[in-house]
Amino acid sequence: MALKKSFVPVEPESHFPIQNLPYGVFRPRRGGRPRIGVAIGRYVLDLAVLDEAGCFSHVPTLTEKEIFAQPTLNAFMALGRAAWRELRAAISQLLDAEEPTLRDNVLLRAASFHLQSEVELLLPVQIGDYTDFYASKAHATNVGTLFRGKENALMPNWLHLPVGYHGRASSIVVSGTDVRRPKGQIKLPDAADPIFSPSRQLDFELEVGWLIGAGNPLGEPIPIDAAEDHIFGVFLVNDWSARDIQAWEYQPLGPFLGKSFATSISPWLVPIEALEPFRIPAPKQTPEPLPYLSQNDTRSTTFDIQLEALLQTSTSEQPHRITSTNYTHLYWTIAQQIAHHTVGGCNLQSGDLLASGTISGEDKPSRGCLLELTWRGTEPIQMPNGEERVWLADGDRLTLTGYCQGDGYRVGFGEVTGRVLPAF
Amino acid sequence: MALKKSFVPVEPESHFPIQNLPYGVFRPRRGGRPRIGVAIGRYVLDLAVLDEAGCFSHVPTLTEKEIFAQPTLNAFMALGRAAWRELRAAISQLLDAEEPTLRDNVLLRAASFHLQSEVELLLPVQIGDYTDFYASKAHATNVGTLFRGKENALMPNWLHLPVGYHGRASSIVVSGTDVRRPKGQIKLPDAADPIFSPSRQLDFELEVGWLIGAGNPLGEPIPIDAAEDHIFGVFLVNDWSARDIQAWEYQPLGPFLGKSFATSISPWLVPIEALEPFRIPAPKQTPEPLPYLSQNDTRSTTFDIQLEALLQTSTSEQPHRITSTNYTHLYWTIAQQIAHHTVGGCNLQSGDLLASGTISGEDKPSRGCLLELTWRGTEPIQMPNGEERVWLADGDRLTLTGYCQGDGYRVGFGEVTGRVLPAF
Repeated sequence: MALKKSFVPVEPESHFPIQNLPYGVFRPRRGGRPRIGVAIGRYVLDLAVLDEAGCFSHVPTLTEKEIFAQPTLNAFMALGRAAWRELRAAISQLLDAEEPTLRDNVLLRAASFHLQSEVELLLPVQIGDYTDFYASKAHATNVGTLFRGKENALMPNWLHLPVGYHGRASSIVVSGTDVRRPKGQIKLPDAADPIFSPSRQLDFELEVGWLIGAGNPLGEPIPIDAAEDHIFGVFLVNDWSARDIQAWEYQPLGPFLGKSFATSISPWLVPIEALEPFRIPAPKQTPEPLPYLSQNDTRSTTFDIQLEALLQTSTSEQPHRITSTNYTHLYWTIAQQIAHHTVGGCNLQSGDLLASGTISGEDKPSRGCLLELTWRGTEPIQMPNGEERVWLADGDRLTLTGYCQGDGYRVGFGEVTGRVLPAF
Repeated sequence: MALKKSFVPVEPESHFPIQNLPYGVFRPRRGGRPRIGVAIGRYVLDLAVLDEAGCFSHVPTLTEKEIFAQPTLNAFMALGRAAWRELRAAISQLLDAEEPTLRDNVLLRAASFHLQSEVELLLPVQIGDYTDFYASKAHATNVGTLFRGKENALMPNWLHLPVGYHGRASSIVVSGTDVRRPKGQIKLPDAADPIFSPSRQLDFELEVGWLIGAGNPLGEPIPIDAAEDHIFGVFLVNDWSARDIQAWEYQPLGPFLGKSFATSISPWLVPIEALEPFRIPAPKQTPEPLPYLSQNDTRSTTFDIQLEALLQTSTSEQPHRITSTNYTHLYWTIAQQIAHHTVGGCNLQSGDLLASGTISGEDKPSRGCLLELTWRGTEPIQMPNGEERVWLADGDRLTLTGYCQGDGYRVGFGEVTGRVLPAF
C-alpha cells in the first residue's frame, strides 16, 4: 500500500506528516486569540477557521459551537473518544493529496494555514492531577544506588507494581518557558545543619507523558484491557529536578520542592492512534504481575519511540546530544500504570497527566538524566567546545526530542526546550 | 464590649454564630441550582438571592453578575482579598440584630433563609493542587516508629522543614459521601509476595485544611510574613488511609494508592478572620528554623482549635469519641508551610488545598488516627457496646468535628463524616 500523502509538502525527516496530526494550542504572532490547531509539515492548520467555514459540519459528534476557538483542548477532549476519532478522520481526509476541498480553495487555505514559525505555541491543556511514575528499571536501580546504596537500590515493591507518586500540576509549563534555578534547603556532606541556597545540582529528566482524555468515576477501576481507551495523546516531559533539595527533603513522603518549581511539556499532543504502527511487544516481566496488571502476551505492548536529550551551553553554538534512549526501555506499560492507578478506586479525569518517569536504558548513553549520566557528579560530561558539565549551569538550554521512525516518514513529538535562569 | 449578636437565634453551642459566617455551596432539597451560602445558626443564608435583591450593590468589589449563583466558590475567591473582606463585613452587617434591612423584610427573609436540614451541602470548591503536610511531631514520631522502628522514627530533615507531599485532588469528596474500601496490593508479614485484596487496615486521619484564595506567580516565593494573606478559609479534612497498601507501596516516592481512593472535607469554609480571637503563640522550635521560615516571636502564631474524632459502628446507636485533640499540637505553622511550599518558586493557585497532616498530641487520647490509637492494631479500642476496633470495619461511620471556644460562643467547623462501604 502506498504511503498516504498530504497536499502539504512534508519532508521525510519532518515530525509532522499526515500520519501524525498532533493537536496544539497556538496564537498567531501577528495577533489574535488562542485557538486549537494541528501540525502538518512546517504549518499549523487552524481548526477554528476550518470549523467556522463548515469543514466539520458533517461530523456528527462536533455539533458544539466554537469548540476549537478555545485556549485549551479540555472542552474538545471532554466530548469523548468518538469525537476524537471522527475529527482525526476528518482532518486526515481534508489534508489528503487527493481531496480538493481545502487543497483547491485558495482563500480557505490562506486563512487556515499558519507557518509554525509565525505562531506562539501555548500550554495545550489545563492539567488536572499530575502523576509521575518510575517505570525504568535501570533508572530506579541507578538512583537507588546513588541515594541509598547498592543494597537498597531497587525496593522490594518495584518489580510487583508500577511505583508512582503525585506531582505538582500548577507549575507545568510549555516548551520555551525559561526555568528559574530554585533555592531551597540543602544539606552539604559532613555539615551538621542544612543551609538555604540556590540548588547546586540542577538536573533534567527525560520522560514521556500520557494525557487522559476520558476518566473513570470514583470507585470504579479501569480494567487493564480498557486502559488505553482513556488516553487522548502523548507528549514529551522534562521533569526538572534539584537533586540536592530532593535528597534532603524526600524521606519519608517523597519528592516535593526538588521537583515542584517547574515541569516542562512539549506543545504537540500526538494522538495514540498515530503510534499504532510503532507498537511492539512489551518486555517480559519476572515475576509475573498480579492478574489486575496482566495482559496476555499478544496484547501487552509498548511503543518504539526514539528519544534524545540535547544540551547547549550559553557559549556553545550547537546543541550537543547527551542522551539517546528509547521508550521501550520502560519495564511497566502505560496500560499497567492506568490499571494500577485506578485499582483502588481513584478517579482519573479528563486533563490528567501520567508521566513515565525518567527513561534510562542499561548502557550509559541511554541514561535520561544527569544524575545517572555523571554518576551524581563524579563523571563529568565533555562538551565539544571543551566545557564540562556535571549539573546544569545558568544559561544552559536543555532540549528533549523524539520520534517514531516509519518507512519513509516519522511520527515526531517536536521538542520540549527550556533555558536555565539564575536564581533570584 | 458586648458580644455582637444576630437577629437569627443562635445557641451558645452552635458552630455558626455571627462571629463565624463560613461559606458553603448548597442546593435546596426541594430543587434548584447550586449556589453559595453562609451558615448562621441552624440556617443557610442564600447569597445569590441577597445579591439579586441588591443587598450587595454598595460593595465596590462585587460588581460581577451572578458571582454567588455558582456551583463552586472559585469565581468569588478569584476576586481577591478585598472582595472577601468587604463581603464578610456586608453579611455581618445584614445579620446584625440592630440592622433592619433583612431583619424586617419578611419576604426577603423567607426567600433567603433555608434550614440547613432542608439543603444538600456540596463540595464547596474545585480543588486545584492538594498538598498534605506532616506537621505533628507526635504523629511523625509514632508513624516513623511503627513503619521503620524507633531508630529511624523522625527523619533528620523533620525539625528543619515542614515535610509535605502532593496528594490526589480528583478524589476529594464532601462530607456525607460514602467511602468504598479500596482493594490493592498488600504484603502480609512473612509472605514472599504481595497479594491483591481489599484493605484490611482502613484508617482515618484527622486534619485541618487551608484553602488558598490568592496564589503567587511561578518563580516568586511568598514571604512568611505575607503568607496568611493568601488564605481564603479553613475546614476539616479526613485523609482516609489504607495502611497495608501504604506500607507496601510508599518507598521511595511516598504515599499513592494508600491515600488516593478518597479524601473527605467538611462543607463549610471558615474565614481565617473568624479564627483571629483564637490566635495564640506557636510552639517554640528547636533548632531555630532557617530565616525564610522564621517570624519574630510575637508574630509566630497558631490557632486554638479543639478537634474530635467520633466512631459509630453499624450496630451502635451513638457515635463514640475516640480522639480529642487540638490544632496547637502542630509543630509547624500554616505560615511556615506556605513560605516553604513556595520558596523554590512553586506557584500556589486559588483553589489549592494545604492540609496539616494528622494532628496528634503527646498523650494517647489525642492521637488523630487508628494507626497510632491502636498502635498498629495491637491495642484495640473498646467501644461502649462491647465491640472492639483496631481498624475501620464496613458500615462504620467516622466523623470529625471541631470548634474554637469563645466567651459565650463557638466558632465551629461543623463536621466531616463518611461511612465505609464494603469493597466491590
